[in-house]
Amino acid sequence: MREPAEKARTAQRELGSAPAATRDRILGGLADLLGARGDDLIEANREDLAAAEASGLAAPLMGRLELSAAKLTTLRQGVMELAGQRDLLGHSLRKTELDEGLVLRQVRSPIGVLLIIFESRPDAVIQIGSLALRSGNAVLLKGGAEALRSNRALIGCLRDAVEGEGLDPDVVQGVEGREAAQALLAHDELIDLVIPRGSSELVRSIQGATRIPVLGHAEGVCHLYLDASADPGVGVRLAVDGKCDYPSACNAIETLLVHREFLPHLQQVTGALREAGVELRADGEARPHCPQAIAATEEDWSTEYGDLILAVRTVDDIDQAIGHIHRYGSAHTDAIVATDARAIHRFLNEVDSASVFANASTRFADGFRYGLGAEVGISTGRIHARGPVGVEGLLTSRWLLEGSGQVAADYGPGKRDFTHRAL
Amino acid sequence: MREPAEKARTAQRELGSAPAATRDRILGGLADLLGARGDDLIEANREDLAAAEASGLAAPLMGRLELSAAKLTTLRQGVMELAGQRDLLGHSLRKTELDEGLVLRQVRSPIGVLLIIFESRPDAVIQIGSLALRSGNAVLLKGGAEALRSNRALIGCLRDAVEGEGLDPDVVQGVEGREAAQALLAHDELIDLVIPRGSSELVRSIQGATRIPVLGHAEGVCHLYLDASADPGVGVRLAVDGKCDYPSACNAIETLLVHREFLPHLQQVTGALREAGVELRADGEARPHCPQAIAATEEDWSTEYGDLILAVRTVDDIDQAIGHIHRYGSAHTDAIVATDARAIHRFLNEVDSASVFANASTRFADGFRYGLGAEVGISTGRIHARGPVGVEGLLTSRWLLEGSGQVAADYGPGKRDFTHRAL
Repeated sequence: MREPAEKARTAQRELGSAPAATRDRILGGLADLLGARGDDLIEANREDLAAAEASGLAAPLMGRLELSAAKLTTLRQGVMELAGQRDLLGHSLRKTELDEGLVLRQVRSPIGVLLIIFESRPDAVIQIGSLALRSGNAVLLKGGAEALRSNRALIGCLRDAVEGEGLDPDVVQGVEGREAAQALLAHDELIDLVIPRGSSELVRSIQGATRIPVLGHAEGVCHLYLDASADPGVGVRLAVDGKCDYPSACNAIETLLVHREFLPHLQQVTGALREAGVELRADGEARPHCPQAIAATEEDWSTEYGDLILAVRTVDDIDQAIGHIHRYGSAHTDAIVATDARAIHRFLNEVDSASVFANASTRFADGFRYGLGAEVGISTGRIHARGPVGVEGLLTSRWLLEGSGQVAADYGPGKRDFTHRAL
Repeated sequence: MREPAEKARTAQRELGSAPAATRDRILGGLADLLGARGDDLIEANREDLAAAEASGLAAPLMGRLELSAAKLTTLRQGVMELAGQRDLLGHSLRKTELDEGLVLRQVRSPIGVLLIIFESRPDAVIQIGSLALRSGNAVLLKGGAEALRSNRALIGCLRDAVEGEGLDPDVVQGVEGREAAQALLAHDELIDLVIPRGSSELVRSIQGATRIPVLGHAEGVCHLYLDASADPGVGVRLAVDGKCDYPSACNAIETLLVHREFLPHLQQVTGALREAGVELRADGEARPHCPQAIAATEEDWSTEYGDLILAVRTVDDIDQAIGHIHRYGSAHTDAIVATDARAIHRFLNEVDSASVFANASTRFADGFRYGLGAEVGISTGRIHARGPVGVEGLLTSRWLLEGSGQVAADYGPGKRDFTHRAL
């Protein structure tokens, strides 16, 4: 796998140093190709669907695998939007005069070679592929075997769009087969970043198999804490939205933490959840306030149900709530319902998660909702990018210094001083 | 090693959510302790020096091991400066109104638990320890066995300064013995970032032994490219400074790339280098222009001499120069000498290194010279932080959202729109 990755690196350097207008035109060309080749793409996908049906793929996976005309239109619109977006490469993050005629700039640059490993959804090829091209990165795309024909056809569009502007199409490459992906994961000198998109099992197995940085999250055990000062109406709204809006999403809540003093109001919240079809699992103190609840066990506190099930636990105070979140949570998204300004401040200040909310649903933790445009993924890592990650997560920086012959030996005690003036 | 790292995490959360004034006072207290305990610190160091001398430690390492009164004063000044610097924790990087009364902030936060592995120099305990405290991080410090007594005494100052403000001193801990450090490197769930400070062997062995992100660089194979349009006088200055100012520094040059058309002027540069005591190793074409040069071999192109030795290679054009840098370099710092604006633009735009310079010495690649204040290290990684890294490299961010009961289900096609207004 050394050769394809090295070719990707060479092609990436060409794409990354090309003018912004070239990347604009590549994305425009990609949108055109997705339109012109619509029938072929849908036909390739139909073959995948037929093979998947014959092999007995589960219905929700069939839904994800399908590339309908409507999905293609949405993908095409997304690419056109990205084509019109401001190109960030080369833009200054910081500009400093070190001395007269010696100017330092920190500019945005592509990361390099990305490896994307995803399941079922062929849409990911275009969503991530176009983000990679916009940000000047090379991308190796490893999809699921069940989407092989669809992915090949879509990767063909990306490559042809690059070649159409006279650049090396090896900046986008498909990776087929588990062995090929495993081989790439061993080469941390060739791949700069791995982005897994799929189940927590997929993410965890990749994190365990490579020394390359992995951007993503394995679990989303998110909490909603109802403070003693909580408005019960807000509690109802946030609990129902957090659990029921999209139960399998990573930003759905899994545990409701309840301040002991809120218990008299708890039935309003749990009743609404029960009516919405949520199964409740409560500790001894909360259980009388939770209709039809079964007893929660230690295991419930760290479980991501991804389903209409919710654990409920009583806490003595906000310290115990925060302690529970740090012990059992996955530092993804946690929210407080409170009217007490001090409780809100403490929760926002002390909870050590990627997203921390007050009186707003955990479901807002999402790149589009945050206004980041396209989303690369949500990261629970603490290095590089954290929380919902937009195109900026695919960029790094370089430091450019321009002078007229200055040397370091001329500076220091008793010699020249640096001016260090922000420009 | 699970227990100390978990204690560090707990203590870190307390330090990281404390008010800025508390961290200011801890650093102030540390400066006081370094003053009050000066004699004890020097005495502890004297014992290390005596033991090292008895065991026959090499002279340059003895120099690094020594903690003189002058070094202590410099360290104390550094801590006082840091105590007066603006605390960055909680400061907003971005503020967006998602909708009326629903405001998102991205704020700076500590990374968490850092593991620093360093050699010989006990100064690193205070330099890195104080940066960690300023940025609200916990720090596990593993120094060399030869500095054990010095490191213990210095770590004691850090811990006592923390405890003096009523916080948990386990936010700073010493790690003793190779086995203890190895055990920590296996726990990527407990340690968030490893920073090795020392030889390229040390850095490479750590990079190979852990899945925790490593901030640093193994090698610095830096290049100076003399373009056809180069001013020979600037070439002389930059070559001599780049090679001779501090030959063992990572930002010293190791290879001089020479455009064929510059060869008639090369002797000016190589003569000055030779006079400064530099041994030259040149390819066949450059060798007649390099006094007393021996023939360079393939191995020379990728060697970091760290000494008064310089490889010289002729190139056909700027493409070949950039190709050589990408093939043999370590993406640390590379510079061009040129007057042709197009050559300068191409070099700055296309060379894919952490620092890329035009007509300025590679020796400027340094956190202090860049105006970043204290330097954590220089990173050749492409994730998180790149090039010279200041205190910002020890920070990540969290996303804080404050609302009044908003839920995600209320937004979408045919429902409410996000305003996404930058504040």
